[in-house]
Amino acid sequence: MVSGDWNERLRASMRARASLVCVGLDPDPGKLPEPLRGMPVEDAIVAFNQGIITATSDIACAYKPNLGFYFAHGVPGLRALERTRAMIPASTPAILDAKIGDIGSTAIAYAAGVFDTLGFDAVTLNPYLGEDSLQPFLSRPGKGLFILCKTSNPGSGDLQDLDLDGRPLHLKVAERIAAWDATYPASAGLVVGATWPDQLAAVRAICPDQPILLPGVGAQSGDVAAALRAGVDRHGEGLVVTSSRAIIYAGSGPDWRDRARDAAIALRDQIEAERAAIRHA
Amino acid sequence: MVSGDWNERLRASMRARASLVCVGLDPDPGKLPEPLRGMPVEDAIVAFNQGIITATSDIACAYKPNLGFYFAHGVPGLRALERTRAMIPASTPAILDAKIGDIGSTAIAYAAGVFDTLGFDAVTLNPYLGEDSLQPFLSRPGKGLFILCKTSNPGSGDLQDLDLDGRPLHLKVAERIAAWDATYPASAGLVVGATWPDQLAAVRAICPDQPILLPGVGAQSGDVAAALRAGVDRHGEGLVVTSSRAIIYAGSGPDWRDRARDAAIALRDQIEAERAAIRHA
Repeated sequence: MVSGDWNERLRASMRARASLVCVGLDPDPGKLPEPLRGMPVEDAIVAFNQGIITATSDIACAYKPNLGFYFAHGVPGLRALERTRAMIPASTPAILDAKIGDIGSTAIAYAAGVFDTLGFDAVTLNPYLGEDSLQPFLSRPGKGLFILCKTSNPGSGDLQDLDLDGRPLHLKVAERIAAWDATYPASAGLVVGATWPDQLAAVRAICPDQPILLPGVGAQSGDVAAALRAGVDRHGEGLVVTSSRAIIYAGSGPDWRDRARDAAIALRDQIEAERAAIRHA
Repeated sequence: MVSGDWNERLRASMRARASLVCVGLDPDPGKLPEPLRGMPVEDAIVAFNQGIITATSDIACAYKPNLGFYFAHGVPGLRALERTRAMIPASTPAILDAKIGDIGSTAIAYAAGVFDTLGFDAVTLNPYLGEDSLQPFLSRPGKGLFILCKTSNPGSGDLQDLDLDGRPLHLKVAERIAAWDATYPASAGLVVGATWPDQLAAVRAICPDQPILLPGVGAQSGDVAAALRAGVDRHGEGLVVTSSRAIIYAGSGPDWRDRARDAAIALRDQIEAERAAIRHA
């Protein structure tokens, strides 16, 4: 990480709001609040995301749409993603969760799509194809990357925990990410699930300064306190605590925006109380 | 693989054309033939793919657009992908190269996008997130999956060759894919680069019956003869030899369609000559 743009922007956004909460914009037509059902899918998604963003813009340190929920609907879905990107306030980092992993000219095309066409600030990537597959992203100054390390799902151990001379694969990946972060102009952060606090602590020891995107709280039941104790950096920061369903579907009636806001505030406050306890420990 | 739909369809397509050649539809506006330059990107891509498909439909056993080249252009790109899908003849399997790897409700959304919204017959997947991330795809009867095992790029060894008790990670992945293929209703095939014939032979020993998508010939310089000897199944089949740039950009002048056809025929004939030699060895 030569250019400090991304890390500084992310940190400034967290400090301005005193919040590590990233809101995942993962619209599922079958789960939308009552008032939005029956609308054409593009308009329903846009109205939903607009409501969520408006209700949480002073709480969310970042927004993270997951490409899958837009791709599911083809062209109207991608149009909704472009409109959603345009609604995210300029002061708030926008992360596209796309878990991209492809090679050569294809990786270059994906990077152009994420950063140039869609205008996102950061993206999630899959490391299975190796360093050369990540290079078109790593070579982008000022952009943020979150590379999958130890994911939050129950089956993440299938590959990520495989034993390499007594150490799990995901720690080898963490070592590589630390090296890439030191070598390339983009910021190479990691994805580690809040569902694995012990593994998170081991990853943090290898990557003391890199931002870690932390899914798995809320609907996936990760223990927020344990994850924070394991994962904050030396400044008590460095975690992007991302929650989707537990915030955006907190309500389904006419007050869905207020319920989403309440859920975001509750998560922020829980995190801030824990961070205060860590600071004073 | 309980339902035989995908494997039977793929095999029937290969036999009808006596061809293992899959044409990769990876349109890059900077490389399009002269006559298509200057058109709006959606129309240029559609005209290009239409020309390639028309010129190769009796040679290509499958077509494989790579999502990255469409995603790069946002909504017009995705519209071009949908129009491209509609142009692929009904008798020819259509594979979306998207290397998807995501979890839970997101994986379900991606599967809906690939199979239901876009209407593809098969898709490429990334195994890094484990079995549960693949389940929404594996549970689709009659669909074809090609799960990344040992990719064609120079850096593929970074993770895929890591040593697990004396065996590389990609062979562990091959074992898992064989087990998934035996357990789930979809067809679980693999992606192995033609650039690694020795590794391909080892994978084929573990997965004797699964279709293997073989990128890396042509522009990536994989040795076709060595890859075929290493990778065909007991029937001398089971390989989907995919080539993009070497076919679709074979010409750049007014005769670009004929040049693409010639390149596809040349690859098919090279493969068929080698398969004949293998049969008579």
